[in-house]
Amino acid sequence: MREFLDKDFILETETASVLFHRYAENMSVFDFHNHLSAREICEDIQLGNLAAAWLDGDHYKWRAMRAAGIPESLVTGKGDDYGRYISYVRTLQGCIGNPLYHWTHLELQRYFGISEPLTPENAESVWNRCNALLAKKEYSVRNLLRMQNVKALCTTDDPCDSLEFHRRLADEGFEIKVLPSFRPDGAVCIEKPSFCEYIKRLETVSGVMIADSGALCDALEKRLEYFIECGCLVSDHSLENDFFSDCTRAEADRIFAQRMSGGALSSEDVSRYKAYIMTALGRLYKKHDIVMQLHIGALRDNCTFLKETAGINVGADSIADFNFATQISALLDSIDRNGGVPKTVLYNLNPKDNEMLAAMCGNYNYSSGAESGEFSLKPARVQFGPAWWFNDHKDGIEEQLRVCARTSVLGGFIGMLTDSRSYLSYPRHEYFRRILCNFIGRLVENGEYPCNMEVLGNMVQDISFNNASDYFGLR
Amino acid sequence: MREFLDKDFILETETASVLFHRYAENMSVFDFHNHLSAREICEDIQLGNLAAAWLDGDHYKWRAMRAAGIPESLVTGKGDDYGRYISYVRTLQGCIGNPLYHWTHLELQRYFGISEPLTPENAESVWNRCNALLAKKEYSVRNLLRMQNVKALCTTDDPCDSLEFHRRLADEGFEIKVLPSFRPDGAVCIEKPSFCEYIKRLETVSGVMIADSGALCDALEKRLEYFIECGCLVSDHSLENDFFSDCTRAEADRIFAQRMSGGALSSEDVSRYKAYIMTALGRLYKKHDIVMQLHIGALRDNCTFLKETAGINVGADSIADFNFATQISALLDSIDRNGGVPKTVLYNLNPKDNEMLAAMCGNYNYSSGAESGEFSLKPARVQFGPAWWFNDHKDGIEEQLRVCARTSVLGGFIGMLTDSRSYLSYPRHEYFRRILCNFIGRLVENGEYPCNMEVLGNMVQDISFNNASDYFGLR
Amino acid sequence: MREFLDKDFILETETASVLFHRYAENMSVFDFHNHLSAREICEDIQLGNLAAAWLDGDHYKWRAMRAAGIPESLVTGKGDDYGRYISYVRTLQGCIGNPLYHWTHLELQRYFGISEPLTPENAESVWNRCNALLAKKEYSVRNLLRMQNVKALCTTDDPCDSLEFHRRLADEGFEIKVLPSFRPDGAVCIEKPSFCEYIKRLETVSGVMIADSGALCDALEKRLEYFIECGCLVSDHSLENDFFSDCTRAEADRIFAQRMSGGALSSEDVSRYKAYIMTALGRLYKKHDIVMQLHIGALRDNCTFLKETAGINVGADSIADFNFATQISALLDSIDRNGGVPKTVLYNLNPKDNEMLAAMCGNYNYSSGAESGEFSLKPARVQFGPAWWFNDHKDGIEEQLRVCARTSVLGGFIGMLTDSRSYLSYPRHEYFRRILCNFIGRLVENGEYPCNMEVLGNMVQDISFNNASDYFGLR
Repeated sequence: MREFLDKDFILETETASVLFHRYAENMSVFDFHNHLSAREICEDIQLGNLAAAWLDGDHYKWRAMRAAGIPESLVTGKGDDYGRYISYVRTLQGCIGNPLYHWTHLELQRYFGISEPLTPENAESVWNRCNALLAKKEYSVRNLLRMQNVKALCTTDDPCDSLEFHRRLADEGFEIKVLPSFRPDGAVCIEKPSFCEYIKRLETVSGVMIADSGALCDALEKRLEYFIECGCLVSDHSLENDFFSDCTRAEADRIFAQRMSGGALSSEDVSRYKAYIMTALGRLYKKHDIVMQLHIGALRDNCTFLKETAGINVGADSIADFNFATQISALLDSIDRNGGVPKTVLYNLNPKDNEMLAAMCGNYNYSSGAESGEFSLKPARVQFGPAWWFNDHKDGIEEQLRVCARTSVLGGFIGMLTDSRSYLSYPRHEYFRRILCNFIGRLVENGEYPCNMEVLGNMVQDISFNNASDYFGLR
Repeated sequence: MREFLDKDFILETETASVLFHRYAENMSVFDFHNHLSAREICEDIQLGNLAAAWLDGDHYKWRAMRAAGIPESLVTGKGDDYGRYISYVRTLQGCIGNPLYHWTHLELQRYFGISEPLTPENAESVWNRCNALLAKKEYSVRNLLRMQNVKALCTTDDPCDSLEFHRRLADEGFEIKVLPSFRPDGAVCIEKPSFCEYIKRLETVSGVMIADSGALCDALEKRLEYFIECGCLVSDHSLENDFFSDCTRAEADRIFAQRMSGGALSSEDVSRYKAYIMTALGRLYKKHDIVMQLHIGALRDNCTFLKETAGINVGADSIADFNFATQISALLDSIDRNGGVPKTVLYNLNPKDNEMLAAMCGNYNYSSGAESGEFSLKPARVQFGPAWWFNDHKDGIEEQLRVCARTSVLGGFIGMLTDSRSYLSYPRHEYFRRILCNFIGRLVENGEYPCNMEVLGNMVQDISFNNASDYFGLR
Repeated sequence: MREFLDKDFILETETASVLFHRYAENMSVFDFHNHLSAREICEDIQLGNLAAAWLDGDHYKWRAMRAAGIPESLVTGKGDDYGRYISYVRTLQGCIGNPLYHWTHLELQRYFGISEPLTPENAESVWNRCNALLAKKEYSVRNLLRMQNVKALCTTDDPCDSLEFHRRLADEGFEIKVLPSFRPDGAVCIEKPSFCEYIKRLETVSGVMIADSGALCDALEKRLEYFIECGCLVSDHSLENDFFSDCTRAEADRIFAQRMSGGALSSEDVSRYKAYIMTALGRLYKKHDIVMQLHIGALRDNCTFLKETAGINVGADSIADFNFATQISALLDSIDRNGGVPKTVLYNLNPKDNEMLAAMCGNYNYSSGAESGEFSLKPARVQFGPAWWFNDHKDGIEEQLRVCARTSVLGGFIGMLTDSRSYLSYPRHEYFRRILCNFIGRLVENGEYPCNMEVLGNMVQDISFNNASDYFGLR
């Protein structure tokens, strides 16, 4: 039997262990998609106590706590901090096989040097020891990022955002790059009640009068250019229901005008508009060499009570099951015919779509460039994205690697991100690398790939950092 | 190499073996969903011979026999009993990797003390030995249940049923609780040809004139109250196609009246009616603290020939693939807004929906109760149900456990049921417990959870029996 | 650690090794579905060099090369042969976990006796050695088939094809049977622009005036009879979107007339027509005892640029996700009511549909024949087809076996095919057999099936060759 979470955690073979410890472990981290706050990093805040650090804003833990019968006051409510913490500790005891169990203990080990399992018995002692550390300057959020060897990270930002804090961080020369991502869902989701108000705001911020879809694209391009000035390398979209139906510019203008004047739209019109605007945005991303991320298949705000009492993004979102193979095909082809598919990362939330989406990626990787003399393996233009949200666990990460390997070239995969709101979530990169090394090590030990440690080590380092750095154009 | 079906069958690690033999093996059985006959238990029938015991009504075996080319006369027809039996034995030889192979041999070992593999060579000897035992009073159906340490079981019953035999069993003080379940599909499936006739029958049985949807709910509530008097803890529904479209009471009344007067309904109307009646039933279940089971995704009677010659439920049912994420979300939210989601178990037949449905469960677990002083882990209000029907095999059970663990708190899982028509099917609880202990044991031996046998043993006992007992309110 | 691709490649247990080497390895190959050219076999062509042998027409490799950033000129373009080859070799280095890595090295070992891993370092040497061999008469395509012990193969052919080369091969007595398959997609896909032209061609070839759907069926039957004269045992269809909506003969005639006169069809009409014609074809296959193959779920020509520059079938096809459970049920039941379901092999491209489709097969296996005295296990009438295209890899093959075993009788499975355009692809049968023996061996070593090597050996030989030979009626 292996000790709980020892140094070879998840590394089942000798090859896996060597690959991780010799090649992967010390690579820098480039976290190309998360939900951290540039303001908080700029202000270099302290997290306070373990309840705040772990439970403020972490809907993964909230869902587990609710499943364990914890009253909402201790979940998203005003319950006292130790009460929230001890409720989580008790919940955690039943969480065998849940990524929370691994994440929590990796965080205790890596940040706080605590390697005993967290139980109701030692909960108070852990609380005291961690809180004492969290109070120190060495545990400010910048220092937490430094501890995990983060080289760069991409936050998620609205095109109307001033990016004030990203700029300040750059101006003061903070050695970890904190880069904005361009997420224009407000301008795409024409069915949302807030759409018209959003367009007005975008008008103000961009200085472009938005009378039609062309002007809307101009306004978005202005903001995209501003984002790029501020270091932006990547955009992001959430597609949560039908998003493609053939649409001309005239139709897009008609639909836009109808919406802005308060008219109702058919669901077909919504799809048409989205097809038009997403094609236009794809063209902009290609033109400005910005990576396009599409997150497909969330189903949000399923519980009216929680939405009304606790708000949005509190753990009542889950997984949709709409069919989108023909739509994503049509969208990517439409973008391709209008300037070429930009570098694109496709994420699916429903794992039933893994193979469909991974295979879809392969349709748009052609390169019309000339033959170069020197050849080196490049990350594929269209990437099957790393395991997202409900798939972000040991099984899901390994399955994503398997599917990626089977349908594409694993050596060119861009690897992992945290997608997190938590400053303590960076050991998830280590977690991913352990799973990656274990996956590769097993294939090698089974005689499915030759045991050339230099080749394998390079591959592991590429997937851990180098590929993403090249792909996103991190300088 | 491990011996075939030895005492550590499925238990690959030492930890798994200890967990099973020390903690799980001797726990009682609470079979909270099956299709046994209260009448047969009341009459304490004998099963006759091995052909009757194994092949009467077992569509799992029929499907295998047809796949092996056995003529229908020996499957559902009037073929002689030994012929049916020997055909099954021959079929079984090709069934490597099929749960029938395990189930059949577990039954031979546990009930009949026969541990040699069943082959065409020893088939006659096994036939004679088993039949001699089946003729004894010690092998009456009550004694078969006693042999497997069954403490309680829930049959599946129509609201119009008199529950005569459940009452008699209770009155005579049979020590195994035989409890009815409330399955009002007849009143929900308005598209079925038998609907109007069913409503008339319900009128008669309930004594309520059913003039509109409100009266229908009153009639159903009367029957539910009667069921509860007879020990009912749980309801059951089968959802086999679209079941939710927003509906007001007035619309429900209009649709109901239209149907009762012989008018045709659009498929949209069918969905509306179902949304209305299911919301109303959910409210009743919450009010009366009855668990709601939803079985989603069967596709029935796919072969007209078998339906017309052999009847329904003869093995020509299979797996549907309709999308229902938004519908189940809307239904549960609708119930939540109308009194709160009752304890609910969601079962999917198509395993592609595992993650979607398991994640969906987590949206409705919030508890507005006050903080209690003493905390103990409770089973989640909305449970991702155990592996159902075509998923009820070693891989499917393990996958259900994995998904449950990843998306919820495994320690609060309510565990297994037989869903069976066979009195010999109770070793499936043992089968489940072996798979459970193996799953947990593997995580522990891999260093993914600490090896605290007391904690683990309690967890295994909870999932084997205690959680279901608490959850369903077995007294 | 196991050596890369040694003699026990994939065989993890002793039982697996014995099963493979003693029973499976030397069985003949019956490749019942592929895309080889009867003309090339008739002319007994030489493949030229390794670039031509590996890269001409192999869209699996093209997709990998594009993912690695290889310019299209070296993929489907006019790049020089060594450039294409070395680009593939470089791509291959990143292909850990991709079936291309295994296939390529199996081909090097089995045909060319090269057992070192292919790397950029030895690429030129491998190129020279292989090309020297490919130039020899011993490496003509007929001899390549002989090297792999191929007994028979089924190509894929249009009903209008003259089958000239199939006839010549039969006439000259080539010892490997090269049999045509009947693939009438041209007459089924009424939505294709080429439909009317195709019907005209079919009129000419069949000599039947095609004025209505009845005449169309007559024409197709004439061609089917001709195919059968030329040795045809099996038909093939690709179903890529909705294919069933109830349809009378009168409706089919109306839709057909409308299409032939240049009228537009609704998508509902397209489904109706397909339902009608597929039912009629199913009846013909049953009448003539021809196996019906249905390949369901490809999504083709996703990239307009590649379609226009490189053509169709160049690697821009992928996986669809439409729902078809009710449609395939309706189609098979419709065929059953119109003469009975013929032997049928159902293939799904989206692995999310594995369980749905495997379970569906079991609905139509009933046999109304009389009870025979002697019983021997027969392959099921409706087969869940072997892992197809994007599923044709180690994981996908094992998953298909698991699903087949769980839902049917694995001992009656008809086994593998290449579905390939490459004369070097025959080691995929060995690959399949290794995975099969490993799967069975693991179950036996785990104590899940008794270790009777004679029984197991027969089962492995049946699945490797005998079942397919019996099922398709190879004489």
